[in-house]
This record gives sequence, C-alpha cells and structure tokens, in this order.
Amino acid sequence: MGDRWGTGRVEAFSDGVFAIAITLLILEVSVPESEFGNLWRGIADQWPSYLAYATSFITIGGIWLVHHAIFRRLQFANTSVMRLNLALLMVVSFLPFPTKLLAEAIHETDAERAAVIFYGATLLLISALVGALWRAITREPGLLNPEVSEQEINKILVATTPNLGFYVGVIVLAISAPKVAAFGYLVIAIVVVLRVRGDPTTPPGIAEPGRS
Amino acid sequence: MGDRWGTGRVEAFSDGVFAIAITLLILEVSVPESEFGNLWRGIADQWPSYLAYATSFITIGGIWLVHHAIFRRLQFANTSVMRLNLALLMVVSFLPFPTKLLAEAIHETDAERAAVIFYGATLLLISALVGALWRAITREPGLLNPEVSEQEINKILVATTPNLGFYVGVIVLAISAPKVAAFGYLVIAIVVVLRVRGDPTTPPGIAEPGRS
Amino acid sequence: MGDRWGTGRVEAFSDGVFAIAITLLILEVSVPESEFGNLWRGIADQWPSYLAYATSFITIGGIWLVHHAIFRRLQFANTSVMRLNLALLMVVSFLPFPTKLLAEAIHETDAERAAVIFYGATLLLISALVGALWRAITREPGLLNPEVSEQEINKILVATTPNLGFYVGVIVLAISAPKVAAFGYLVIAIVVVLRVRGDPTTPPGIAEPGRS
Amino acid sequence: MGDRWGTGRVEAFSDGVFAIAITLLILEVSVPESEFGNLWRGIADQWPSYLAYATSFITIGGIWLVHHAIFRRLQFANTSVMRLNLALLMVVSFLPFPTKLLAEAIHETDAERAAVIFYGATLLLISALVGALWRAITREPGLLNPEVSEQEINKILVATTPNLGFYVGVIVLAISAPKVAAFGYLVIAIVVVLRVRGDPTTPPGIAEPGRS
Repeated sequence: MGDRWGTGRVEAFSDGVFAIAITLLILEVSVPESEFGNLWRGIADQWPSYLAYATSFITIGGIWLVHHAIFRRLQFANTSVMRLNLALLMVVSFLPFPTKLLAEAIHETDAERAAVIFYGATLLLISALVGALWRAITREPGLLNPEVSEQEINKILVATTPNLGFYVGVIVLAISAPKVAAFGYLVIAIVVVLRVRGDPTTPPGIAEPGRS
Repeated sequence: MGDRWGTGRVEAFSDGVFAIAITLLILEVSVPESEFGNLWRGIADQWPSYLAYATSFITIGGIWLVHHAIFRRLQFANTSVMRLNLALLMVVSFLPFPTKLLAEAIHETDAERAAVIFYGATLLLISALVGALWRAITREPGLLNPEVSEQEINKILVATTPNLGFYVGVIVLAISAPKVAAFGYLVIAIVVVLRVRGDPTTPPGIAEPGRS
Repeated sequence: MGDRWGTGRVEAFSDGVFAIAITLLILEVSVPESEFGNLWRGIADQWPSYLAYATSFITIGGIWLVHHAIFRRLQFANTSVMRLNLALLMVVSFLPFPTKLLAEAIHETDAERAAVIFYGATLLLISALVGALWRAITREPGLLNPEVSEQEINKILVATTPNLGFYVGVIVLAISAPKVAAFGYLVIAIVVVLRVRGDPTTPPGIAEPGRS
Repeated sequence: MGDRWGTGRVEAFSDGVFAIAITLLILEVSVPESEFGNLWRGIADQWPSYLAYATSFITIGGIWLVHHAIFRRLQFANTSVMRLNLALLMVVSFLPFPTKLLAEAIHETDAERAAVIFYGATLLLISALVGALWRAITREPGLLNPEVSEQEINKILVATTPNLGFYVGVIVLAISAPKVAAFGYLVIAIVVVLRVRGDPTTPPGIAEPGRS
C-alpha cells in the first residue's frame, strides 16, 4: 500500500464538477431576438441545442452513475486513481465546449461533420478514462471493499468497456451522415443510463439512511 | 429488492444541480448601457427579469424542500428512482432557458404568450416528475424507512399532486392574459413553499446535529 | 416542536449557493479588446471591477462564516428557519447583479450614485435576513444544541445586528460621495470577517476530524 | 485554544469553490462563427484557449489535492486558518479572469507579455497562500491530528514551498519569451500533481469507506 487517499472528499469534489458541467450546458441555449416575431417557431428552431443539451446531460448523468458505482466499492483511492479521476473531470468539464459547437454547427454541412466528430472524440475520451479508472482500481485489489465479488468487478468492466466500440462506430458514421450520428450519441447515452444497476445486497457503508 | 443505491451521493449531486440552477438565473439579468443615463429607471425597467428570477428561484427552492422531504424518508433508492431523479434534474437544469425567454419576451404581446406558456409547460413537467418520483417510491415500500407512516406518505402525495392542476389552469389563463399568468406561477411557487412542513417527530438519521 | 428539519442538507445546499454566487462574480470581469494595445493599463482600468469583486466576495465569505457559526449550534431547523434561509439565499444569489452594475456604473457620476445605493440596499437586506434568521432560532430554544450558552447567543446577535446601522450610514454617505461609499462596503465586509470567532470549547458534533 | 472551527463545512465550501472555478474556465472557449467555413482549422486555432484551460485546470486540481492533504490532517481550524482559506479561495475564484486574458492575448506580442506575467503573478499568489495556510497550521500544533508525524509536516511544507521559486523563474522568463513561459506554467502544474502522494498508513477518520 503506502499510498492512500480517503474517498469522501474525492466524491464531493467530483459530484461538484459533474453537477456544474451538467448545469452550465443550458447557458448556451437561447433564441435570437430576431425570431421573437414568431417565438414558437424560434423555440422549435433551437432543436440542435436541445439535442446537444440532452445528449451531454444524459452522458454525464450516466458517467456519474458509473462513478458512483465505482467509488462506493472503494476502501481507499491511491495516487493513480486520484490522477485518472482528475483527468476524467478535466474532459467532463471540457464537454460544454464541443456541445456548444455541435449545437451551432448543425445546418452547415461541412462544419456539422467536424463538430459531430469532435464531439464524439470527446465522449470517446471520457469513456476511455472511466474504463482506465476502473482498470487502475482492479489492478490493486486492496483498494476495493473486501465484500466486492469477482462478478461485480466484471459487471462494471462490462459497463465501462464496450461503449468505446459504439463511439468509434458512430464517429465513423459521422463522416457520411453527421446528423444521424448526432442522434447516435444520444442513443448510446440513454443505453448507458438504462444499463446501470444498483447493488444486489447492501455492502456496509451503504446502509445508512442518507445525510438527513 | 436486488437493486439498491445509497442515497447520500444522490442527495449531494441533486443539491449541487439545484444550487447551480438557482444561482445561474441571475447571470441573464442586466441593465443595457443605454439606460445608464437614468439608472434608477433602468433598474426598474428590468421588472420582468426580477419576476422571472423570483419565480424560478422560489419554484426550485420549493422543489428542493420537497426533494429533501422525500429523500430523508428513504432507506435506499432503486434504479427507477435514480432515473426519475436524473430526469427531474435535467428539466430543473433546463429551467434557466425558459426563464430567460420569459424575461425577454414580456412587452411583446405575441412573444409574451408563447414564452409564458413554454415556461409554464416546463414547470408542469417538473411538477409531474416530482410526483412520479414519489409514486415510484411508494410502489416499493421496502425503500422507505420503516418509521414512515401511511399518513406521511399521503401528505407528500398531496404536496406533490394538485400543483399539476394549478399549472394547467395558469397555462390556459396565459392564452388570454399572459402577464397575469406570469404572476400566477409566482403565486403557485410561494404557496408550495408555505405548504411544506418538517417532521412531527424525529426519525432516526435526522437526530444528528448537522455536519459541524 | 412538531416541525423539524435535519440541518445537514440545508448546510450542503446553502454552501453550494454561497460557493457558486461567490465564484460567478468573476465572469463579469474582462478587459475590452480595444485596450489590448496597452494591456497593463487595460488591467489597471478595471479597478472598479476588482473593488466590486472583492467587496462581494468578502461580504459573502463573512455571511458564510456567520451562517456556519449559526447552523453548527442547531439541533434542528423548523419551517420558518428553512424559509428565512431560502430568502437569504435568494438575495445572496441576486448579489452578482448589483455587483455588475456597481462595476459598470463607476465613472458616470449619476449612474454611480444609483448603483452604489442599490448595491448597499442589497447588502442591507442580506444583513437583515441573517439577523432575522438568528432571531427566529432564538425564539424557539429547542432548536439549539443544549450546550449553547446565553453568552454565545448574545455574541452572535451582536455579530449579526449592528451591521445594519453601518450599511444605512454608508448608503446615506453614497448620496454625496458614492465612490467613498463603495470603499465603505469593503471596509464593513473586512470588519465582519475579522470579527467572527470560532468556539471557545468543542461542542459535540464538532469534534469529528472532518470528512477525510 | 479558545478558537475552534470544525473542518467539515470548510472542506465542503472549499470543494464547491474549487469545483466551480475549475468548471467555469470552459465558458470562455469558443470558435468564432467566421471560422465555421473550416471548422477543423477553427478548432485548432483555439490552442491558446486549450493551453490556458489545461494549465488553470491542472493548477487548481493540484491545489485541491494539497488542500485535501492539509485538511485531512486537521482536528480543527482556528480563525486565522479560516481567513487564509477564504483569501486562498478568493484568488482561486479570480483565476478565470487572468486565464481568459492569457487565451485572448496570445498572438499579440505586447499584450502577450503582460497577460503571461499577470497570470503568473496570480499563480504565485495562490501558491504563497497555500504555503501560508500550512505554516499557520504548524504554528499551532494542537490543530493537527495527534498522529501526524514531524516527517509528514515537512513533506507538505516541501510540497507547498519551492513552487514559489519556479513561478518567479517562469515570470522572469516571460519578459523575454512569453509563449515559452505560458507552457512553463503548465509544466509546473503537472509536476505539482505528479508529486502529491497519499498517506503511508491510515490515520483515523480516513478509514471510513466514503459517503456511499
């Protein structure tokens, strides 16, 4: 061992970054004043913003669920977990930028393709960092709560790995059909959220009834 | 059971999103430089911004009080509670956008009507999701603290349900009298906050004197 | 009793709002591109922004210290404490708007006066709400930890009350000398922070060594 | 003693400010619409923004790791620790402003030099405040957990002090080679993060398995 970090403050800090990144997304959405003459149409015309907002929100929400599932199985973090977590937060905080580009570039074919690929590359990197975080943890089993079974370890590995393939697939699709690919990211995000599950039993430290 | 989530981090993450959504609202409020010649008048002219700010702040504040009242009665969350909570946070985070539209569109009759209805529809959706969250919890009674009485369950059901009717009423009113309807949302928000109550006795897990 | 709220989540939510309001202040500070030819001068020209930033930051920081001193003495909150706390957070979240006005209006004599008075009125309201919060708590002594002495109750009353007089004084001063008054708010904020003290002994619930 | 503050809420509030300051940085990054004709090039042209974003993110991330290492060794804070912590948070919250200047000023030689020096001076001040915070703690050993060894105290002192020299060196370098100096800050930030280590053994209060 010889290199331990408590997990309480890492979770609090990560939750803060996830919550803020998820909430800042809406700041970029607005209807130009020139469309106030027909505001219903103006609201409808912002659909690329809503698509980008929903995709980024649900993606970060899914990452948060997986992050939660990972950290509640930890006894301690070590320094490489701390660094990978910081790298993950850095890319999650970066996501509002490609999200904004995605919303702005749709309708202009060339810009659209670049924006959809750039956005997908960011999601791919986030997904790879979550996988790397879990693999760094499983390499040093003393970090995990003793109750965590081999089966649970594999379940999380499955939850974090194959998304990489999906993202690569949708990014390739974006070359020929960027608009379809933009919806593809949304589908991946929804599938991730639908696939995450709670615990079959109650490991110690989860039984307490919340913080009141 | 077979599907359990601890509630501590869900509360922390939700508090983060509520706190940020509530605080971002002010970023959109400003006095145009052209009104600095008579700044008192310029400040007064922003009343639609203050109305929209106060309504959204008090609405989210009330949702937070109800969210607090719900989660402190939970032993665990299950996966559908986690998903409904994410959906709720997604619409709460979206609220700054219709809030901004409401503030900008007042004074232009046609835009005003659309903005007030769009804003009300968002509040209606938030209210419906809070109700759905509570109903998903009561469907699986093992999630609740054993001390929670039938009476408390109904009290929260009452606190979350009838608002739907009020919102539909004010949205219909908005068709003919959008400005009046804008104040109607504020009245509903204040009524929700005034109606929320604490606990008659002290369930376990609430007795601790805070986090220092 | 019959109306109790645990304090843990109120503190977490309030900390979130304080932290965000304090951090958003910097978003309004920038050097116009036209001043990039002589950037040192451009940076120096933003002094009203730095003054407004520092005053609002230190004021909210002081309010947070007092809020911390109040809530760690509570066993429970009741509904009127919850409402007053929400009202306090609503005005604290509003502060970035008068802060921005203050920074923008300095240099234009007429606008300056209005902005300084409007800013001071917001600080006065915040200070009055903190006082009202503490008075609502002392009216129902069952809310306090039994260890809290009469002397401590008065010490906090003293820390929250006389600021009202200072604010009124500086607001009156702003009518004739708005720039001097703007510095007056900074002085009050620094004095509040310098006056707040920790606990003479360690009440239960404070002895734990943090959250790790 | 006679002047004690619990550390739980200070950590929560500080985490909030760190998390927000780190996440707001991305709001300033955008591609001007005029570059949408060749969006890949437009994305590449923003490299000064990415450099500024990464440097500020990793710097604040490193400060957070050190802050975490400091506060988990505290039993209590005293009033001067609280004040120094507020001052530290005030400069950390200010950092998005010099970060934005740095990103905007690169490419214009004169402005570049001023922006790089101003940015470095802010980092120097942050670094000095972290050192002052730790020295204020070690001056009153009753604040520390009894288990903290002399060796650990010196390790943190080493982690917080010599950066001052590096920053002064890079600021001097900025006079003749501002672009190189801008990358110098990034190198310092990465070195700080790589140098921070966890605990050799598990002091009490760190053993708990997180907040679930």
